[in-house]
Amino acid sequence: MEMETKPREKPDSTRWASNAWALLCAIRSQSPLIQCITNFVSMDLMANTLLSAGASPAMIHSVEEIPDFTPHTHALCVNVGTLSPNWLPAMKAAAELACKSGKPWVLDPVAAGASGFRLRACLELVELKPCVIRGNASEIIALSKASVGPTKGVDSSHESIDAVEAAKSLAQASGAIVAVSGAVDIVTDGERVVGAHNGVPMMQRITATGCSVTALIAAFVAVDPVNAFEATASALSIFGVAGEMGMNMAKGPATLRMHLIDSLYGLDEADVLSRVNITSLSR
Amino acid sequence: MEMETKPREKPDSTRWASNAWALLCAIRSQSPLIQCITNFVSMDLMANTLLSAGASPAMIHSVEEIPDFTPHTHALCVNVGTLSPNWLPAMKAAAELACKSGKPWVLDPVAAGASGFRLRACLELVELKPCVIRGNASEIIALSKASVGPTKGVDSSHESIDAVEAAKSLAQASGAIVAVSGAVDIVTDGERVVGAHNGVPMMQRITATGCSVTALIAAFVAVDPVNAFEATASALSIFGVAGEMGMNMAKGPATLRMHLIDSLYGLDEADVLSRVNITSLSR
Amino acid sequence: MEMETKPREKPDSTRWASNAWALLCAIRSQSPLIQCITNFVSMDLMANTLLSAGASPAMIHSVEEIPDFTPHTHALCVNVGTLSPNWLPAMKAAAELACKSGKPWVLDPVAAGASGFRLRACLELVELKPCVIRGNASEIIALSKASVGPTKGVDSSHESIDAVEAAKSLAQASGAIVAVSGAVDIVTDGERVVGAHNGVPMMQRITATGCSVTALIAAFVAVDPVNAFEATASALSIFGVAGEMGMNMAKGPATLRMHLIDSLYGLDEADVLSRVNITSLSR
Repeated sequence: MEMETKPREKPDSTRWASNAWALLCAIRSQSPLIQCITNFVSMDLMANTLLSAGASPAMIHSVEEIPDFTPHTHALCVNVGTLSPNWLPAMKAAAELACKSGKPWVLDPVAAGASGFRLRACLELVELKPCVIRGNASEIIALSKASVGPTKGVDSSHESIDAVEAAKSLAQASGAIVAVSGAVDIVTDGERVVGAHNGVPMMQRITATGCSVTALIAAFVAVDPVNAFEATASALSIFGVAGEMGMNMAKGPATLRMHLIDSLYGLDEADVLSRVNITSLSR
Repeated sequence: MEMETKPREKPDSTRWASNAWALLCAIRSQSPLIQCITNFVSMDLMANTLLSAGASPAMIHSVEEIPDFTPHTHALCVNVGTLSPNWLPAMKAAAELACKSGKPWVLDPVAAGASGFRLRACLELVELKPCVIRGNASEIIALSKASVGPTKGVDSSHESIDAVEAAKSLAQASGAIVAVSGAVDIVTDGERVVGAHNGVPMMQRITATGCSVTALIAAFVAVDPVNAFEATASALSIFGVAGEMGMNMAKGPATLRMHLIDSLYGLDEADVLSRVNITSLSR
Repeated sequence: MEMETKPREKPDSTRWASNAWALLCAIRSQSPLIQCITNFVSMDLMANTLLSAGASPAMIHSVEEIPDFTPHTHALCVNVGTLSPNWLPAMKAAAELACKSGKPWVLDPVAAGASGFRLRACLELVELKPCVIRGNASEIIALSKASVGPTKGVDSSHESIDAVEAAKSLAQASGAIVAVSGAVDIVTDGERVVGAHNGVPMMQRITATGCSVTALIAAFVAVDPVNAFEATASALSIFGVAGEMGMNMAKGPATLRMHLIDSLYGLDEADVLSRVNITSLSR
């Protein structure tokens, strides 16, 4: 409704691509320290994703260390993939301290709907003001429904439309940028919506690619916390570009995983400017 | 003794290979959800093995989530590799709930004999009616001895023979299909014994290949729980075929690991029919 | 000061290289069992590093299993990377039992200065007589300062010199061989200092390479515990050689990671003798 009164976004692919390249350069030169409290499955690929992008990962999850360590980080990534009750207090303490220290933090609500325990944990984390929330469509829909109720007038059989509306509702309710990974990655601040049209389908056949791009979002918002909307779309697109370039050399999911990381490490300006494809989807 | 009264198995390599291919196709089309409660070392390769085979892995281990989540899975894989006392209740709760829900579950008794704590945990898990138990010879022998006592009349200096007899005893006592990985993988239901003659020795120089094939067995029994004996042998053989094909491109354990996963993803009917080599070893 | 009274070391590259090759052969033929109590990020690469070198890794961290298991290992590797309070008792129990059983153990004080909790844990572990301590410059400096106070007369703006002096002080105070990873890896027993000039900078863009070389040190001291100084330098150099050879085939961090492991597996005598570059840095 109120979307109608907004001026139409003028998509500017060149501007988006230039900005994504500038942010990647900032990560490479500043090497931001990213604390990751993440699931066991993702730790290896997530750390290597951050390292290949130029950031500095720190997998530190013990609640005892957070008061000393978290204030020195540049961003925090919290991922509930292999959640257990004894990890939740550290996630919450780190999120609170990141906020208090003015550092952005990013939430990955893996499998948010898999259990009541997990959904409640995600809702508690959403209360702690994440800068960005990234999930797949079913995760964002589950979280949005639990957080703000079902989106009115949306046919639940159309998951991609559902996801956009759910993402906007969740963004408005939480104040976070919300990103939905899919064939096209969607990013919204509750009003503006952009699509990042990079990546290849085989990335879904590699475990922890979703988790890793969330950590990459943390690195991008670390170097530009004021423009988290742009940083989030840029991170999704850059990771997708690395996947596309990796796919040119891949023969299956394992070679793709390897070449994706190498490509992320080696991305140059021409790669980024020619491939980043972010467009406005706002109406 | 009583084995003598059984009719001789008529090995039919073609039938085995066709069946293995049919099961792999079923996994690819049905994408069964496999819950893995497994050790930290194996999580990455296990998840990627399941994804490359077409299954959907879920590493969810918290006891709080099992009542909500486990009934929705198609099979469960429990692996005690990095066991600690706080993980055991979840393993047992998930196993019990899988049984109650009519879903098969598979046990990997990693290093069963490494400590009294671990052996007792494995015995408690065996009591909970796994559909399949897969280990190496020393693990199966340790578990069988602890479960049913030493196999009579077997010269313990002949480990391969030991393992067959121990596997048969364990299968009879537990009601599970028992698989023993080795130069030839052995599968028994307590009466029938088959050998899966696929794979390459270098797979033992890659961590978590054993754990990962156990998860693959879970995916195979998920799509054919009634024929767990055949499904188990098929999974072992298919993983071995992927290893053989990967070995053609490998220069060492790390390239083998990568090409194995790519090969598993790309296996076609001709690969499977020409390479799967399962024969009856029953006397 | 007292260093002046020592006879000058006569660096003998050939002798060092021959010794490194002999130790690698011993690992390949004896396949020592190395217990690793390590962080979640490193487990996969560490296990594969040990396997590719010919050793036998065992990631067993539960305090319940240590009395049964640790006495059967040939060396222990303790790494505090993802430390939490419930893991520390097992680290200490295993270290104590390793000492009591006459088995060498190796400490990796990851991010020793990241928190008070972590630094205290590292100091408690140092008290338990590690055979070797390996870290990067900032970790060794943090540990040395906390252990023996700041090194006098050293300009703290010169980190590499700082690290040598800090390493010597820590070695003297603890009785351990101390290794400092960097552009040149430094090893000291508190008097002698050698530099291992192998490796490539891109190894720092792969997570867990530092953790993995510490585990490799454990394998080297396992086969020659009496000469832990030589074994430590040899392990660092051999891992660096594998990195150099891997770098010849690599296009980025992920291909390097793969080819490093393959190279470590495939190293032959000519590779080792022509590339190992260890020199005395003692004055």
